[in-house]
Amino acid sequence: MSTIQPKTLKGFRDFLPKEARKRNYVLDTLKKVFESYGFEPLETPVLEYEDILAGKYGDEGDKLMYRFTDNGGRKVAMRYDQTVPLARVVAQYANDLPLPFKRYQIQNVYRAENTQKGRFREFLQVDIDTVGSPSLLADAEIIAVAVKSFEKLGFKNFNVKINDRSVFSNLFSDKEGKVIARAIDKIEKVGEEKVLDELSTVMGMKAANNVLQKINSQKKTESFFKVASYISKFGINEDYLEFDPKLARGLDYYTGLIFEIASEDYPAGSLGGGGRYDDLIGIFSGNKIPAVGFSFGFDRVIEAMAELDLFPENLGGTKVLVTNTSPRSAQVAIELRAKDLNVELFVDEKPLDRQLRYADKRKIPFVLIVKGDKLELKDMTTGEQKKGEIDEIAEMVK
Amino acid sequence: MSTIQPKTLKGFRDFLPKEARKRNYVLDTLKKVFESYGFEPLETPVLEYEDILAGKYGDEGDKLMYRFTDNGGRKVAMRYDQTVPLARVVAQYANDLPLPFKRYQIQNVYRAENTQKGRFREFLQVDIDTVGSPSLLADAEIIAVAVKSFEKLGFKNFNVKINDRSVFSNLFSDKEGKVIARAIDKIEKVGEEKVLDELSTVMGMKAANNVLQKINSQKKTESFFKVASYISKFGINEDYLEFDPKLARGLDYYTGLIFEIASEDYPAGSLGGGGRYDDLIGIFSGNKIPAVGFSFGFDRVIEAMAELDLFPENLGGTKVLVTNTSPRSAQVAIELRAKDLNVELFVDEKPLDRQLRYADKRKIPFVLIVKGDKLELKDMTTGEQKKGEIDEIAEMVK
Repeated sequence: MSTIQPKTLKGFRDFLPKEARKRNYVLDTLKKVFESYGFEPLETPVLEYEDILAGKYGDEGDKLMYRFTDNGGRKVAMRYDQTVPLARVVAQYANDLPLPFKRYQIQNVYRAENTQKGRFREFLQVDIDTVGSPSLLADAEIIAVAVKSFEKLGFKNFNVKINDRSVFSNLFSDKEGKVIARAIDKIEKVGEEKVLDELSTVMGMKAANNVLQKINSQKKTESFFKVASYISKFGINEDYLEFDPKLARGLDYYTGLIFEIASEDYPAGSLGGGGRYDDLIGIFSGNKIPAVGFSFGFDRVIEAMAELDLFPENLGGTKVLVTNTSPRSAQVAIELRAKDLNVELFVDEKPLDRQLRYADKRKIPFVLIVKGDKLELKDMTTGEQKKGEIDEIAEMVK
Repeated sequence: MSTIQPKTLKGFRDFLPKEARKRNYVLDTLKKVFESYGFEPLETPVLEYEDILAGKYGDEGDKLMYRFTDNGGRKVAMRYDQTVPLARVVAQYANDLPLPFKRYQIQNVYRAENTQKGRFREFLQVDIDTVGSPSLLADAEIIAVAVKSFEKLGFKNFNVKINDRSVFSNLFSDKEGKVIARAIDKIEKVGEEKVLDELSTVMGMKAANNVLQKINSQKKTESFFKVASYISKFGINEDYLEFDPKLARGLDYYTGLIFEIASEDYPAGSLGGGGRYDDLIGIFSGNKIPAVGFSFGFDRVIEAMAELDLFPENLGGTKVLVTNTSPRSAQVAIELRAKDLNVELFVDEKPLDRQLRYADKRKIPFVLIVKGDKLELKDMTTGEQKKGEIDEIAEMVK
């Protein structure tokens, strides 16, 4: 017998059935929306040549990336996001992927984050991207799919903040623009004063004040009006959209429209965001390939849905436990299963009270007690017991 | 622009939409079967403390395992299978997981295999296991779920070979038994003569002959008869089962019934296998926990289904491309989508012939050409074009 303590690494998680079911429910819902808009699934490996990923995510990324040398002496790195692998795929299979390429990708990514801030080192990214079209119609569609997704998940009071990165590059020099975008990105979290402090250390208080004033007085851009008009074509109420000149998005690589979805009901943070990035996807193919995408904050979505009680009561879990108390039990389980119910037959040989306790612990809502020829359904919530035939039992459960 | 060549590591694969859709179809089908029998989803991290995995898979495993030291100086290893992580979970969350614990797990595992033999270094494992019951009813249920799964996927001519590992330990000493099981395991692949050669180098020709004779004359075990009688209770035809004294299964850890599913129509190899292993799950909890499971050979299943033409024609891919040729296009796409069809709106601004070529390359079966107020549906297979209103169009597509 081993004396090794069973434990998970910091920042890594097991998902036991209760949590795993919630995650599956959200993913199934999202995939259905994505596919209804013609987005197609893509999967890439967890390991890439280090060369492919290194230097693509700034100093932060190079610091937080998991990398090692494999048994064959190759320098490899673990998936850090899904956008650089997408860029590789677009270059590598150029002949098999007609543009625009609309894909969704749902895989774990790995970052050696500071776990003391509650961050995870393995977490699921859920991305949709349209590669190969410069049209604002593509931006509008990405926003529409995101909005439709949150509607399908049951969110009500949410909105889409929209800004245009070119505002920063038009108002400021390129280098300055990036520094400013990164600082402004924190306004929501730390407040305007702190951001002013940060900017003033770089450019002096006067210039910093000037920057904030310019940004606050920024008017709606033409791209905003255009996307807003398209969005209603996609059957999405324009009221969801809100121009926000202070929206900056942290990542350097955005080049055009940027957007973020948040809910009033869940003030802990945004539920996802994205934007146009026309200079990144072409890095491996050597030509410019425009792209626009949205990334769902999957862990936040799960947390928000739990808080707002948006999960349906039955998440496809087991509905009925059939007791192993008669030679007929297995047959009864089959018959119930044929009525499209998830049915567990108790497979161990234990007294009835142990089997009931098991159902209680597993939170299975109904137990069907098989006593010779008789069937008795026990509602585990109310404790009520009723006799009946299979058809009646199935009806009671439903 | 980068001059890094876009390529994947040896033994690692990208799954472009066409392949990814097939994989998703199989997984959705399997999950539904698993859940209908009360199996619940479980996910574990890709990285574990090296201690947890090291030494659990024999010399081979220690050699092929991906391991490295992380940024925090911890020795870590990548998921090598899903059974040892299951053992960890069962020990770590003993209070939250009432036994029997019936779980399915579908995650990638990592092995630095020899890629020249066509082996992959990242591949999906699809496992079902019942933990905590010594009853043969649990074995029978696992076999029933496996059979039901292959039926649902459309396989017809397949069968379940069954043997009992205790045959080997009853006929031979424990150490000898394992050597013999490993050798016998290759009979199907290399033939009886080669296995005889291998055994004779260990124990001499006479003893080797003796071993093979003993095995060939082995009669059906009591456990086989019992499982066969249970299996019909699970609504599975007994004819699927076949006692095979030469079935050995490679892994050391089996302790009781072992089984393997193969199809006459696909002679390339077995489509999955499993068995009872009563000494493994308890390694972290320090007590003996009986278990039985089945592992689907996912890549083989996909390959066999493609060869046998078992995939449905439409795998949930895009059904209709709506051309971006009118201000009405987006609205038309919405209306079609409302009829429960997967519809892509062409989001780029390109001439009609380019849009048609795109649909052709993407193998989208229908294109809906929007010309002002008129709708014209083009069947991309026959080239036929028909006018109609949305309702008629939706009917034609279906």
